[in-house]
Amino acid sequence: MEIAYFNGKFVPKEEITISPDDRGFLFADGVYEVVRWYGGFFYDMDSHVTRLKRSLRELRITWDDIELLSSIGSNLIKLNNLENQQVMFYIQVTRGAAKRTHYFPSPEVPSTVYASAWGFVPDNQSKESGIKVMLSEDIRWNRCDIKSVSLLANTISFQEAYANGLKECIFVRNGLITEGTHSNIFFVIDGTLFTHPESNQVLSGITRKNVLRIAREAGIKIREEPLLENRIRFIQESFITNTSAEVTPVIEIGGNTIGEGIVGPVTRLILEKFDAEINVLKG
Amino acid sequence: MEIAYFNGKFVPKEEITISPDDRGFLFADGVYEVVRWYGGFFYDMDSHVTRLKRSLRELRITWDDIELLSSIGSNLIKLNNLENQQVMFYIQVTRGAAKRTHYFPSPEVPSTVYASAWGFVPDNQSKESGIKVMLSEDIRWNRCDIKSVSLLANTISFQEAYANGLKECIFVRNGLITEGTHSNIFFVIDGTLFTHPESNQVLSGITRKNVLRIAREAGIKIREEPLLENRIRFIQESFITNTSAEVTPVIEIGGNTIGEGIVGPVTRLILEKFDAEINVLKG
Repeated sequence: MEIAYFNGKFVPKEEITISPDDRGFLFADGVYEVVRWYGGFFYDMDSHVTRLKRSLRELRITWDDIELLSSIGSNLIKLNNLENQQVMFYIQVTRGAAKRTHYFPSPEVPSTVYASAWGFVPDNQSKESGIKVMLSEDIRWNRCDIKSVSLLANTISFQEAYANGLKECIFVRNGLITEGTHSNIFFVIDGTLFTHPESNQVLSGITRKNVLRIAREAGIKIREEPLLENRIRFIQESFITNTSAEVTPVIEIGGNTIGEGIVGPVTRLILEKFDAEINVLKG
Repeated sequence: MEIAYFNGKFVPKEEITISPDDRGFLFADGVYEVVRWYGGFFYDMDSHVTRLKRSLRELRITWDDIELLSSIGSNLIKLNNLENQQVMFYIQVTRGAAKRTHYFPSPEVPSTVYASAWGFVPDNQSKESGIKVMLSEDIRWNRCDIKSVSLLANTISFQEAYANGLKECIFVRNGLITEGTHSNIFFVIDGTLFTHPESNQVLSGITRKNVLRIAREAGIKIREEPLLENRIRFIQESFITNTSAEVTPVIEIGGNTIGEGIVGPVTRLILEKFDAEINVLKG
């Protein structure tokens, strides 16, 4: 029986009842985080806490127990006997349940907090051979920096990739490549690493941030600037980053083979250094 | 005890349990309609059915019982003894509950269908004296033609208006006025009625459509084209339309008084003809 977390309690997941008046259900009025557990530790939990705080602050949703995030995750992992596995810890906080109004409930109602954890099998095949991705117009809103559950644009765009056997859909806004539906994307051109700068057009990925640090430490030249779609033919290497994919090479973008269509040396260096950090943490 | 509708059954609302795995809760992966009951009949139910079908089709969500929409509404109104009142009938259909993946559940899972009805008091004061609205950048995604529950941009924008004592927030995209957070907006310049054309930037409002018909029948010249924000100073009249506001005059936009700051003659004519049609339906 799966145990999940709901408004302060650890309960059988099947007993959790979200109200149809929940603003998460009616308005996508909520935020979330997904934190990875590497069979013994959470990856950069501090950054997830910081980002969740920011998301809540930007939307003015109150959750007083945010400092409990890590312990909620640990408890879920223990209660579900997942300690020694690869786990995704998911937490969602919405503005709570109230009579349906476009304005925020007044007086404020308690936020709804739901969390669960599940074991997963990393896609090592994709990390080794690289993935093919499609390009699509970025139809999302312009607060992609907030990790909200307003994800309809992401799901319908990703579904298009999925249905075509591709592993991610990369967005293009006004001719500039922003990011994937649930990943950031990096490019290597003449040894320089490019990725879209932090802005309201992209999510500030935790893995993105750590990859930039790793690249910087490795002496790789970095330019945080958006790449024009029409410069794809100049790209020698590419990879995406997110919590589950970590660093996953991209060998084809929108039908264009990247470099030799194999994992390039800069990508391999970053991937190895990323994996090495994980192995150090594993002890 | 309020009775609501959930997946084929009429049940006490408090017994309805949305799964935390519902894609409406996790991804805003659902659509909705709000239909008005005028103490005896639904306003243009056919158009709501048509629009809901389109929304479902655009997102490839399946709901086989859509032809029951009207009877679900009638039953809710009867079961809650609301027959002789002004009622909002709300229905939401999501892609259903499934393990969290960005791609659509495969195989497909049953959609989640939730509906409820509540009595409401029309804001006649606003219809008589007109309302003041603010202007704000249109931060929404670019499929505003789909009536989805991905409404976070709408709620945070409307909240800003509400907190400032204003009755709507009107969006501006690339210098062009699109629509409100939950209304369409019309302008009168030199006797011609302007409103944004149907496109992926606006919702095709049912009241909008009927107002255009009424204006056409009244011999008013219509131009369905977006208005540049910087032409606001040339506007003599303005009004918003939606299911609850019907035709509500706008007397101030973003701090600019419209015309004389009172309800103008074209607006009054349309408003009266709209009310007259309702009265005919009332019999």
